[in-house]
Amino acid sequence: KINPDRLWDSLMEMAKIGPGVAGGNNRQTLTDEDAEGRALFQKWCEDAGCTMGLDQMGNMFARREGTDPEALPVYVGSHLDTQPTGGKYDGVLGVLGGLEIIHTLNDLGIKTKHPIVVTNFTNEEGTRYAPAMLSSGVFAGIHTQDWAYARVDAAGKTFGDELTRIGWRGEEEVGARKMHAFFELHIEQGPILEIEGRDIGVVTHGQGLSWTQVTVTGKDSHTGSTPMPMRRNAGLGMARILEKVDEIAWSHKPHAVGAAGHIDVYPNSRNVIPGKVVFTVDFRSPELNVIEDMEARLRVEGQKIADDMGLEVAFEKVGGFDPVAFDAGCVAAVRAAAERLGYSHMDLISGAGHDACWINRVAPTAMVMCPCVDGLSHNEAEEISKDWAMAGADVLLHAVVETAEV
Amino acid sequence: KINPDRLWDSLMEMAKIGPGVAGGNNRQTLTDEDAEGRALFQKWCEDAGCTMGLDQMGNMFARREGTDPEALPVYVGSHLDTQPTGGKYDGVLGVLGGLEIIHTLNDLGIKTKHPIVVTNFTNEEGTRYAPAMLSSGVFAGIHTQDWAYARVDAAGKTFGDELTRIGWRGEEEVGARKMHAFFELHIEQGPILEIEGRDIGVVTHGQGLSWTQVTVTGKDSHTGSTPMPMRRNAGLGMARILEKVDEIAWSHKPHAVGAAGHIDVYPNSRNVIPGKVVFTVDFRSPELNVIEDMEARLRVEGQKIADDMGLEVAFEKVGGFDPVAFDAGCVAAVRAAAERLGYSHMDLISGAGHDACWINRVAPTAMVMCPCVDGLSHNEAEEISKDWAMAGADVLLHAVVETAEV
Ligand SMILES: NC(=O)NCCC(=O)O
Ligand SMILES: NC(=O)NCCC(=O)O
Repeated sequence: KINPDRLWDSLMEMAKIGPGVAGGNNRQTLTDEDAEGRALFQKWCEDAGCTMGLDQMGNMFARREGTDPEALPVYVGSHLDTQPTGGKYDGVLGVLGGLEIIHTLNDLGIKTKHPIVVTNFTNEEGTRYAPAMLSSGVFAGIHTQDWAYARVDAAGKTFGDELTRIGWRGEEEVGARKMHAFFELHIEQGPILEIEGRDIGVVTHGQGLSWTQVTVTGKDSHTGSTPMPMRRNAGLGMARILEKVDEIAWSHKPHAVGAAGHIDVYPNSRNVIPGKVVFTVDFRSPELNVIEDMEARLRVEGQKIADDMGLEVAFEKVGGFDPVAFDAGCVAAVRAAAERLGYSHMDLISGAGHDACWINRVAPTAMVMCPCVDGLSHNEAEEISKDWAMAGADVLLHAVVETAEV
Repeated sequence: KINPDRLWDSLMEMAKIGPGVAGGNNRQTLTDEDAEGRALFQKWCEDAGCTMGLDQMGNMFARREGTDPEALPVYVGSHLDTQPTGGKYDGVLGVLGGLEIIHTLNDLGIKTKHPIVVTNFTNEEGTRYAPAMLSSGVFAGIHTQDWAYARVDAAGKTFGDELTRIGWRGEEEVGARKMHAFFELHIEQGPILEIEGRDIGVVTHGQGLSWTQVTVTGKDSHTGSTPMPMRRNAGLGMARILEKVDEIAWSHKPHAVGAAGHIDVYPNSRNVIPGKVVFTVDFRSPELNVIEDMEARLRVEGQKIADDMGLEVAFEKVGGFDPVAFDAGCVAAVRAAAERLGYSHMDLISGAGHDACWINRVAPTAMVMCPCVDGLSHNEAEEISKDWAMAGADVLLHAVVETAEV
């Protein structure tokens, strides 16, 4: 069993870097705070006897040697970057839970046949640079590295330049490593485990995602002296499309969700009718055909709304992945570990995207989830109990050790 | 008659300061560009033999002496600040048209009994600091100077600090000057003069304005793992209120307009359901009871929308003025000038707010308007013809000279 206090202390220590404004964190990818968090993680890993690898996407790999020089490593991990108003656990628990496993094995003097590698993937959150899970995506061959380097943030800075600037661009070729298996521990970010009163979610599937960036173009003009019939109000067009997004998601109840989290209005002046609005629609479902249907309807109905209002509209897909089925063997290892340890558990479909969703393309993969209070995540008030963190890390430990073979 | 080439050259010269991205201007109030524009205007005024006064709000007063030391000055002018994506004429024509009058009187060796003062009022646009017409409002005793100094921009900087920083905070008490009359030349910013084929609008009234800042509060949470029924989506609440704003404005057709130009979404991340949206609703009408009705309905209907969605909503009035009736004598002087010069003209209600609307409270006031192409303003593509500028400045000249007495 892992040491829950040590795990908890490490979570609280990491949360001091890039504090938010309301008790959570703002440690967005490729910021100075991200660099500081990485340095702390590296120090902790080296203190635990690991060697650190770093690839050209800034993905970090802390390795504890195995007894068989030929054996491929078992990987565990997640991400240390956060949302702008994020919590202390989303991603971090998976990385520091991995490190806690290393500490526990060290304490007990247990050697595994396969090496164990704890990873921190760069830019999982996708706020500063769309899409989410960018670097695990490059690792899995989904995106090219050049494309990833060219991603631009709201200030016009590229991913490649910022990675270099913070000093965490490595030499290692991305995706060159082969994995025996990959396990990711993560908070659920939804309410199901808490409602059902279970300690552990055995994640069998992940729902798919589609991000469509919508640009509505009208004509900026004076809010006072432009007669109502002459207006081409891109803000009102955005409002009508948002209403439609909600309607589309509800029409697939309960197997779909939809919303827009990102909305930029131009020129954003109180007395100028918006000439342009750019926003991103996030649709998700465990069913591919539902995602495809929602995406298609957004384009058709959005176009109709724009046409009716004399507006122009453009749609660009800026992120997405198909629904995922995790590896049966790895899932079974997670379920067996929960069972053996006596933690209450249930099978779960992940509502969020995770690095595990991409790594599943190139290695046998599964996820362990623990509850979070009120299902709340992507919020500074995100909270978990020490017991939940312990249960998750214990299950992770046992699944990993079984897979890495003692 | 004024010299249209000289007037036009001065407009083009001023437009070089704070150029926009699409042929217009971004010379927002209390920026370095504003300071540069002010310095150029001051130089031109002094070259024309005027003395410059500067009050504690940064309002500029360029004075050409009259022949009667006892006579109160006739004031003309407008503002040099622009929208973030503004045009080259909104405000600027009124200031440089005033300066052109001085040049013309100098050329012709005409002396007036009353001094003539050309003004540039600070922060007419209200984008960086709400409300609009802030400094003419302080001049007219509508706002206190302390309150104006405490206005905060989006970056958290106060009006008072920024006015000091750019070096244009004067010593003179605001509003201490008494005016014999005030005339403001401005582009129409609407389509009526062009549609009706008239050179000159004789502005008899100005419609009133109400700015209500609306804050919708929900709960930021994950776009993927938060089930639809658990969402408290402030972005969707904003969308529904915007739709209602449009409906309310149309219900008073054709005597009202309504829209929101300013919308800020928090935390503005693609995979976070918005926890908060702040936006400003702009309602206008020539009829006070219509404005009051729209404002009241926004609050009632907005509250209902929020309640139905489990959201909170707060309303704050951040700007506004009642409909204005300009001074009958000054209006008659404008109409007579247009008539005498043979320019086609019509009476007009101003759709926008102007410094003249506040100055009308403390001095006999009227406005002269000229057409603008497609009625477009608050857009970098805002355009007028040299002939329209000439007609407007000619009428201004004659109305002013008649009032200032030769
Ligand atoms: N786990 C998580 O929040 N990942 C970010 C990608 C997503 O939006 O699902
Ligand atoms: N003329 C003008 O655009 N003034 C700004 C105040 C308003 O929004 O009417």
